[in-house]
Amino acid sequence: MERITLSEAKFDVPCKIAGYVEKIRNTKYMVFVILKDRTGRVQVSFDKGNTPELCDEVLKATPGSVISVWGELKESPYVKQGGKEFIPTRVKVESVADQLPVDDNSFIDQKIDYRWVDMRTDRNTLIFKVQTLLVNSFREWLLQRDFMEIHTPKLIGTASESGADVFELKYFDRKAYLAQSPQFYKQMAMAAGFDRIFECGPVFRAEKSYSNKHTTEFTGFDIEFSYIDSMYDVMKLEEEMLTYALSKVKEKYGEEIKELFGKEVIVPTCPFPVMELKDVYAELEKRYGLVYPDSVKGDLVTEAERKCEDLAKDMFGSEFLFIIGYDAKERAFYHMRDEKGVPLGYDLIWRGCEITTGAQREHRVDILKAQAEEKGLADDVKFYMEFFKYGVPPHGGFGLGVDRLTMLLLGITIKEAMFIFRGPQRLNP
Amino acid sequence: MERITLSEAKFDVPCKIAGYVEKIRNTKYMVFVILKDRTGRVQVSFDKGNTPELCDEVLKATPGSVISVWGELKESPYVKQGGKEFIPTRVKVESVADQLPVDDNSFIDQKIDYRWVDMRTDRNTLIFKVQTLLVNSFREWLLQRDFMEIHTPKLIGTASESGADVFELKYFDRKAYLAQSPQFYKQMAMAAGFDRIFECGPVFRAEKSYSNKHTTEFTGFDIEFSYIDSMYDVMKLEEEMLTYALSKVKEKYGEEIKELFGKEVIVPTCPFPVMELKDVYAELEKRYGLVYPDSVKGDLVTEAERKCEDLAKDMFGSEFLFIIGYDAKERAFYHMRDEKGVPLGYDLIWRGCEITTGAQREHRVDILKAQAEEKGLADDVKFYMEFFKYGVPPHGGFGLGVDRLTMLLLGITIKEAMFIFRGPQRLNP
Repeated sequence: MERITLSEAKFDVPCKIAGYVEKIRNTKYMVFVILKDRTGRVQVSFDKGNTPELCDEVLKATPGSVISVWGELKESPYVKQGGKEFIPTRVKVESVADQLPVDDNSFIDQKIDYRWVDMRTDRNTLIFKVQTLLVNSFREWLLQRDFMEIHTPKLIGTASESGADVFELKYFDRKAYLAQSPQFYKQMAMAAGFDRIFECGPVFRAEKSYSNKHTTEFTGFDIEFSYIDSMYDVMKLEEEMLTYALSKVKEKYGEEIKELFGKEVIVPTCPFPVMELKDVYAELEKRYGLVYPDSVKGDLVTEAERKCEDLAKDMFGSEFLFIIGYDAKERAFYHMRDEKGVPLGYDLIWRGCEITTGAQREHRVDILKAQAEEKGLADDVKFYMEFFKYGVPPHGGFGLGVDRLTMLLLGITIKEAMFIFRGPQRLNP
Repeated sequence: MERITLSEAKFDVPCKIAGYVEKIRNTKYMVFVILKDRTGRVQVSFDKGNTPELCDEVLKATPGSVISVWGELKESPYVKQGGKEFIPTRVKVESVADQLPVDDNSFIDQKIDYRWVDMRTDRNTLIFKVQTLLVNSFREWLLQRDFMEIHTPKLIGTASESGADVFELKYFDRKAYLAQSPQFYKQMAMAAGFDRIFECGPVFRAEKSYSNKHTTEFTGFDIEFSYIDSMYDVMKLEEEMLTYALSKVKEKYGEEIKELFGKEVIVPTCPFPVMELKDVYAELEKRYGLVYPDSVKGDLVTEAERKCEDLAKDMFGSEFLFIIGYDAKERAFYHMRDEKGVPLGYDLIWRGCEITTGAQREHRVDILKAQAEEKGLADDVKFYMEFFKYGVPPHGGFGLGVDRLTMLLLGITIKEAMFIFRGPQRLNP
């Protein structure tokens, strides 16, 4: 008999269910098991008088064990678990669990040591259901708009961008590096005339950082598209895509998220507010008395970034804020700049945290080369410069961190938002 | 004015189009440009008498350059390019191409050196359109069936499975390795009660192999799911998913694939034929006179694998063939075995090439441990063994190579099927 889920089980129809033993209670006349599968829970009631051999079998199970049960779902108004119970005719213990090594009260690092046990809670499983929907809503939206998906190499021959924070590895008789971002390759796709592409894949950063939002490996969602007129086309695409995905998440999981994380999923309205960086600093000072020296104002300092949550809410009633007008010194050489030398790029801040850097890219090879030289990168990016010699359309794009988005959406830490966190001290399990 | 694609352009309506200059012809009275974008081609006809300044501008363009053109699409029965032409009122050369470094006649390795130019042909762009649809059809089918998507770490602390063919890297003050497959982590998701998961991501193999189907990095599509009764549940899921995706590909790109690759997309029928390995060898001998020593018959040798294309066609009229009954010595330690010690796993052969290894996994920790020890892997897989101590459902799964599938579908080499090929000698671009 094929196993069905609890949501598929009908009253008084013989079936097979299976799942984890959440609780097991051995009373004088009965053994009660709370069985949990991906769709819900049910009480399975074993009668010692009628089915002693089933009781003997199920009593081998411990909390966390996996059992299969054959039988029928019955209406039982007196049962707390939804007014129903499952009456077994056969049971099999598939896997016996040792005493569970972590619970809700364990420290996060212990929990990660036993991540597979930790993720079994409704709350933690929901993280990955939500992430699945978020990412696949992005894809769905992009595919409807004729985007292609690419898979760019993570093993690369040159330490891209700066050489700092890059993992180096032995590649037969030479060295290779792990891609810090698919940036160069998604631009290569533009030079290939692919027009509009996305990629979802791992990104590697050899940063010895212990902040609550940094990891050495994370999942990036990257987009690049051609024939844009300005960075505003990029911002428009991003805000529309995010709005679509958040509406999908709210629709399917809004209630559960509220219940298990105490967070409201707010579907934004387009367009998102846009501010110049200098105006952000001016407003932060005026409204909240936050004063910073001019020397740091080419970029958004972390504390100011956090305060942008209030700023966006107070000024625009928005959780999102686009910031433009960063100093060229603080931005990648491949961002296009205006006639005054200001990068045509932006950051997107959500709930006080940067989730995206996006930009129109410089596609004119001479200017691009000059900007790379200005940053002392001429040699490292030689191969990249080649992409621009044989015709390339004006283009732009952005990248999102899937884990960071999940973290902000649910109000959790990055360690909780990842299937398995990776940091300088964390390579296991 | 926002750029529209050629497929969106309407007759006699002012618009802006943009794309690559495929050809440019300078005649006495006219300059003719064949402009190509992702949706098609059009002739843009510049009149030297009426618009000399436009002709001056467009003559800066070379084949491969990118131009934007404002104007109107006109019906012109005498124009070969579909009985229409585009009459410009303005033109801008966005990017001038140097002499193109490769063409259809170049060798594959030269082409890869300039992959972004090479991929511009209709044929090569179609590869990635087809791959996009294939992969996203898998996802769509799985999401409809309540599968979750996970992103497992590629940086791992222990050289998994065997330690051979693993890339090693410096991870701050210790060593790390690149995941050869998400196998252990997708099983971890089963131990987490995720029930049904998939992952699409890079897989790394430090193999010094120069075959036509091996690469050091490729895109894997991996699936794992719980509460199966046997490996036949895994095979059933795989054949149904593949059939769905191939029907989608045929529907959207069947004609183009036939035209540009000379290949028929054949949508299989379920169930796929299944043979025992020993019967495969017996039939290969009987039908084609292929004789092998018994010593190699625990696995499918490459030549026999190739001949399975004919065997599947001749015996079953099928392009696909499941083979079961491999020798335990030839299979991973984590495959469950029957009471005779035969692994409950299979390979799926398509067009004479193995595209999948799948299996029911051994979830009983004692047996799993014994099987690991038998292969001398006890120490390497200690962390993995932990996943099975706290309750884990019976489960199984399989992995597909996205690039290899693309290769077989279109009848091309693996170097052509990848965005950028990676091999022992190939780390660039």
